[in-house]
Amino acid sequence: MEDMGEFKEKISELLKRKCFVELRELFSGTEPPDIAEALGGLSREERALAYRLLPKETAADVFVEMEPEDRETLVDVFSDREIKDIMDELYADDAADIVEEMPANVVQRLLKNASADTRKELNELLKYPENSAGSIMTTEYVSLKRDMTADEAIRYIREVALDSETVYTCYVTQNRRLLGVVSIRELLLMQDDAVVGDVMNEHVIAVSTGDDREEATALFNRYGFIALPVVDAEHRLVGIITVDDAMDVIQEETEEDFAKMAAITPSDRPYLRTPAVKIWASRIPWLLLLMVSATFTGIIITGFENALAAQVVLTSFIPMLMDTGGNSGSQASVTVIRGISLGEIEFRDLFRVVWKEFQVSILCGVTLAAATFVKIMLVDRLLMHSPISPLVALVVCLTLCLTVFCAKLIGCTLPLLAKKLGFDPAVMASPFITTIVDAVSLLVYFGMATALLGL
Amino acid sequence: MEDMGEFKEKISELLKRKCFVELRELFSGTEPPDIAEALGGLSREERALAYRLLPKETAADVFVEMEPEDRETLVDVFSDREIKDIMDELYADDAADIVEEMPANVVQRLLKNASADTRKELNELLKYPENSAGSIMTTEYVSLKRDMTADEAIRYIREVALDSETVYTCYVTQNRRLLGVVSIRELLLMQDDAVVGDVMNEHVIAVSTGDDREEATALFNRYGFIALPVVDAEHRLVGIITVDDAMDVIQEETEEDFAKMAAITPSDRPYLRTPAVKIWASRIPWLLLLMVSATFTGIIITGFENALAAQVVLTSFIPMLMDTGGNSGSQASVTVIRGISLGEIEFRDLFRVVWKEFQVSILCGVTLAAATFVKIMLVDRLLMHSPISPLVALVVCLTLCLTVFCAKLIGCTLPLLAKKLGFDPAVMASPFITTIVDAVSLLVYFGMATALLGL
Repeated sequence: MEDMGEFKEKISELLKRKCFVELRELFSGTEPPDIAEALGGLSREERALAYRLLPKETAADVFVEMEPEDRETLVDVFSDREIKDIMDELYADDAADIVEEMPANVVQRLLKNASADTRKELNELLKYPENSAGSIMTTEYVSLKRDMTADEAIRYIREVALDSETVYTCYVTQNRRLLGVVSIRELLLMQDDAVVGDVMNEHVIAVSTGDDREEATALFNRYGFIALPVVDAEHRLVGIITVDDAMDVIQEETEEDFAKMAAITPSDRPYLRTPAVKIWASRIPWLLLLMVSATFTGIIITGFENALAAQVVLTSFIPMLMDTGGNSGSQASVTVIRGISLGEIEFRDLFRVVWKEFQVSILCGVTLAAATFVKIMLVDRLLMHSPISPLVALVVCLTLCLTVFCAKLIGCTLPLLAKKLGFDPAVMASPFITTIVDAVSLLVYFGMATALLGL
Repeated sequence: MEDMGEFKEKISELLKRKCFVELRELFSGTEPPDIAEALGGLSREERALAYRLLPKETAADVFVEMEPEDRETLVDVFSDREIKDIMDELYADDAADIVEEMPANVVQRLLKNASADTRKELNELLKYPENSAGSIMTTEYVSLKRDMTADEAIRYIREVALDSETVYTCYVTQNRRLLGVVSIRELLLMQDDAVVGDVMNEHVIAVSTGDDREEATALFNRYGFIALPVVDAEHRLVGIITVDDAMDVIQEETEEDFAKMAAITPSDRPYLRTPAVKIWASRIPWLLLLMVSATFTGIIITGFENALAAQVVLTSFIPMLMDTGGNSGSQASVTVIRGISLGEIEFRDLFRVVWKEFQVSILCGVTLAAATFVKIMLVDRLLMHSPISPLVALVVCLTLCLTVFCAKLIGCTLPLLAKKLGFDPAVMASPFITTIVDAVSLLVYFGMATALLGL
């Protein structure tokens, strides 16, 4: 959908001219997420009018894809009958997500109007904690018996296909216990009279309802699944997670990590639709916190005021030392944070990680110090006739070496410690590392200066 | 696979005791990515031995999942016959990926031993540029004719299922031109004698072979597809991208973004398996570049040496001003970079973005300045009896306000400009913004100090 702007205008135009037949046709050739985005740009009245022109099944899909606030404006003007139709058409997991986001009075209206079956499924799904595998699963899957033949299985699937979120992966159960998995592709490849129990894969990878949803979705990345079964404590199949929902979760978690790494409280609202005050609220606590920590760096400088006054040239290297330390530390911390996120690095790898960063920090520190020494001697002293003594150059270069070393070690250790203590490692990214490394680099700098320059 | 360590030991153990039947059984209950990881931890000899025990189809899947260097050690010891078997068993897109990664002499051996058909498919796929949609597609898809009945279509699918990477989405073509799409679920829901052409969805979303692979995979996130058709300039169907490959690409691109934002050259090797020298090589160019830029900040300080010598207390606020500026700028830049990546923000939104960040920067700047003023007056002056004059406090707070303002505007503008100029916006993240904002904040600081304090 390249021309969302045009598409929105066309809808407004057709609505104004009351060309409902053309509008219906336009919608029938458009994917639900695109319709949802376009409706978001209309006025409340236009939105409700346009929405009512959608075919029933598309309407439910569009409803799911809308921004929560757009959805609420629709629910406000809907009759109980319309709400019931939508609720019954939605897949149980989508309905549960929507109910979770809505204000309490709207939820009451939604639940009151859902059919008894829908309400039961919903309550079932709503009991799982946020961020658990149970909270993202759907209860509408295909389950087969192990003594079915391929032909029987396919006929059964044809009966239930309409009510199942995916028919591509089928689960073989007995008294609701998960016995095996068989894909529709395998069923199609079987002889008509072959028995499902003989073909199914018994080594099923499944997650428990209480598992972290991030762990569950990581399995999709690793194994290329289309669906993943979710079982309860007795290994009874209670639902499945489908790949499209897994992708949504992965994207959401990735965006959360990006936000945390930039010291922002994550939000799932699109940036351009978020009011400035909300953006301010998601950023200011971190800025204040980091500003307070940075004042400690100021205190260190104040403590060495006399040294700085005696050798003002020392001040000019402060930004370079602080920035390089911060950058070195972020490189290590972001690498380790991503490694943890992807399951490549765990706390028990701490010593391997520290050893690796130790080597890298020596290599980086020496390279940077050498480059700086050459630069000071050639550019500053020879070219610019700057009065920097070789001893000051030595202090700067040694500080650089030691700062990079500390920065890399702090950067690789803190995320692993955070993980071990149950915090999100992503918070230990650039801003925090920078603040800590700033203080460390100044302490090292003034320490070196005091010792070598005798200040 | 929680206990990868145990699994590896068990394989080594069974190999040493020559218990090949048990080993085969162990493998049959394990997913290919887990086997591939375990084989990576074995010696060359053990790896080749264990690999030869794998059933033929699993062997190809494991081969695909291995790290490139492990794969090469296998190819080294394989007979031409073994190589031919693997190449013919692989899906064309996986084979093409593997061929692209291998050194030239190995590629010659691989191609020489592939069957004529495989070689033709491979050459077809290898001609697409890196990072294009064509380079990640597979040519093994199901294509139906529009006059087929549901029953005929299903029978046809059963014939070709073994050679198709996915049978879940089928494409309707005429003279290779893409006419429509129909899912196997829809086919199963049709009456036996209903005609495919009547049921298919004619509004197919497709990408061109030359499109950016990132754009192609973004469509999976937006629409929840299982597969996406790839067409040539004449709208002829040439291949499909499957959801598992799309997820791999998304993950790879995400990791690249994380790396670039932390000023690291991206690499797709797992951290713990990368030698320290390679890690150093991916980090040091950026550290050097940023260090050189940071020396400009040093030059600014040198230019105001006299002012600093006259009012040494000014120095103690430098870290706080620089850090807060850097953090404010990163918040804006990371938000905009992610917005661009997700397709939420485009260059034409520049003014909306600038207006939003303008509002946010005023809110943040005033809050931070107020907090700092209160802190200086109450904590520093009253509590610590520090000799900071109210005028100096004013200089600091005004600088803070202006720095946050500049940082947010620079942070939100640079990624959009980079995108417009054809660079990767991710490079315009924290490290670069910090370096630029440092210089800006110091210029503002000394400008204010000179004007208000008359230095």
